[in-house]
Amino acid sequence: MNLPPAITLIEVGPRDGLQNEREIVPVEGKVAFVEALADAGLREIEVSSFVSPKWVPQLSDAAEVFARLKPRPDVAYSALVPNMKGLERALACGVRRIAVFTAATEGFCRRNINMTVDGSLDVFRPVVAEAKKQGVFVRGYVSVVFGCPYEGAVDPAKAVAVAHRLADLGCDELSLGDTIGVAVPAGVEAVLSLLKFPVAQTAMHFHDTRGTALANAFQAAIMGCSRFDASAGGFGGCPYAPGAAGNVATEDLVYAFEGCGSKTGVDLHRLAAASRLAGVALRKEPPGRMYRALKSATC
Amino acid sequence: MNLPPAITLIEVGPRDGLQNEREIVPVEGKVAFVEALADAGLREIEVSSFVSPKWVPQLSDAAEVFARLKPRPDVAYSALVPNMKGLERALACGVRRIAVFTAATEGFCRRNINMTVDGSLDVFRPVVAEAKKQGVFVRGYVSVVFGCPYEGAVDPAKAVAVAHRLADLGCDELSLGDTIGVAVPAGVEAVLSLLKFPVAQTAMHFHDTRGTALANAFQAAIMGCSRFDASAGGFGGCPYAPGAAGNVATEDLVYAFEGCGSKTGVDLHRLAAASRLAGVALRKEPPGRMYRALKSATC
Repeated sequence: MNLPPAITLIEVGPRDGLQNEREIVPVEGKVAFVEALADAGLREIEVSSFVSPKWVPQLSDAAEVFARLKPRPDVAYSALVPNMKGLERALACGVRRIAVFTAATEGFCRRNINMTVDGSLDVFRPVVAEAKKQGVFVRGYVSVVFGCPYEGAVDPAKAVAVAHRLADLGCDELSLGDTIGVAVPAGVEAVLSLLKFPVAQTAMHFHDTRGTALANAFQAAIMGCSRFDASAGGFGGCPYAPGAAGNVATEDLVYAFEGCGSKTGVDLHRLAAASRLAGVALRKEPPGRMYRALKSATC
Repeated sequence: MNLPPAITLIEVGPRDGLQNEREIVPVEGKVAFVEALADAGLREIEVSSFVSPKWVPQLSDAAEVFARLKPRPDVAYSALVPNMKGLERALACGVRRIAVFTAATEGFCRRNINMTVDGSLDVFRPVVAEAKKQGVFVRGYVSVVFGCPYEGAVDPAKAVAVAHRLADLGCDELSLGDTIGVAVPAGVEAVLSLLKFPVAQTAMHFHDTRGTALANAFQAAIMGCSRFDASAGGFGGCPYAPGAAGNVATEDLVYAFEGCGSKTGVDLHRLAAASRLAGVALRKEPPGRMYRALKSATC
């Protein structure tokens, strides 16, 4: 197999994982989770979000979490930023990597952030410009690239067009999201074939709602993609399909890629320990498959 | 993507799925499950096993189940057969497709069927010969092709050598099993690259214990494999990793392959109805991801 020799896993559990969980994790629990993830070898961690606390109560303590994180020169911490006010808050916390986010469909954009796609790009234009001026790394998320809970299947050309518009704002990286976990490998091929943005700066963000996340990740990796978002323990759920699985579990990607010779730099047992920590804080067993296989083998 | 235009799913839920579940399903429950699977469009169904009831109490009613199945000319029903006595029982029930089974490792073969690999082949030689004489289709299973709970990683060359010896007995088809769900796509590539048996007569049997089943199936499909074993609803568990997931869910394969343009002939909603039926009989929610996504979307 022609896979990238190294795979970078961008850990989004503290943000995308936790924000979909009901149980509120206190600041110290979040800090311990992030530290444990860094200890496991993850080098890019999305820590929190500077959106309004009304939108995501779970992440209303972003500033406190960042203030308490031990500085680690070799770990890049990032946060979601919805507008200029969010950027100001992030910068005040010393955050040097931010993420902005729009969607491939009007329906999702409106219900998720109450804006049109055009409107969201207008909001993010000055945010990205200011961030770049300050030397801050900017990730641009596109949600529902492969399918939308409100509009159904998404035309790959339409999704990629939104990605290109986001890239044109000056993003250093794109993250193409299968927000509701409907993607299949042929769809991944279609989207990546159309994308005119460097694959080295493109992360794929899969959810495992229908069990397809790893198949999708391998299709992307065959096409040269080496960056994948993942959530330790598979936390996250899917707000559009209650009871179904959410973010692909970091453990599953580590196991599969390492087994194929692609290095992730992540220690699987330490990672599972981080997931266990989050599970205790969330009062919930981590749903990830590899996590459960590891656990059952060691109990 | 260069995938086979059609994929055949061999439904093993009534046998491999149920045999790992604690709750004993009565004859009528099994018959209803099999009929529902056939109604969903599955054309090859492994119904039961003529092993000793002491080994697998769940399947001790094989003869009654076969007796009560409605004949369907377009559906191939099969059963596991461990020896000549099992073959005689199967033939007496009118079974026209049987499966014999050995393993890639001595450790697993001994603990699973209390024989050496050589010994198992000696036992199966006359069984396959007699079956062929009677015009009965024979499948040969190789277990733990990618890894063994007693011996760890398995050399692909060693696993393939066992497969070849089983094929040489006269099997019409091989099924290469990742019994404990440790396979990754690179391992699938290694095994299929070494196999000197027609890919059109080779089924891959994946378990989703570590979330890799679909990625493995797509790797096999890219290499021309179009036959996959699967268990409706993902029933089956993994006896070597209690609490972990087992057989890949038929729904997950149907969704992913159909989404990529490879026809399975299976109706996803009818299939989920069959899984629900089994779930009621087993007093257990089907664990499959696509099943849960479907259910949460329709509840």
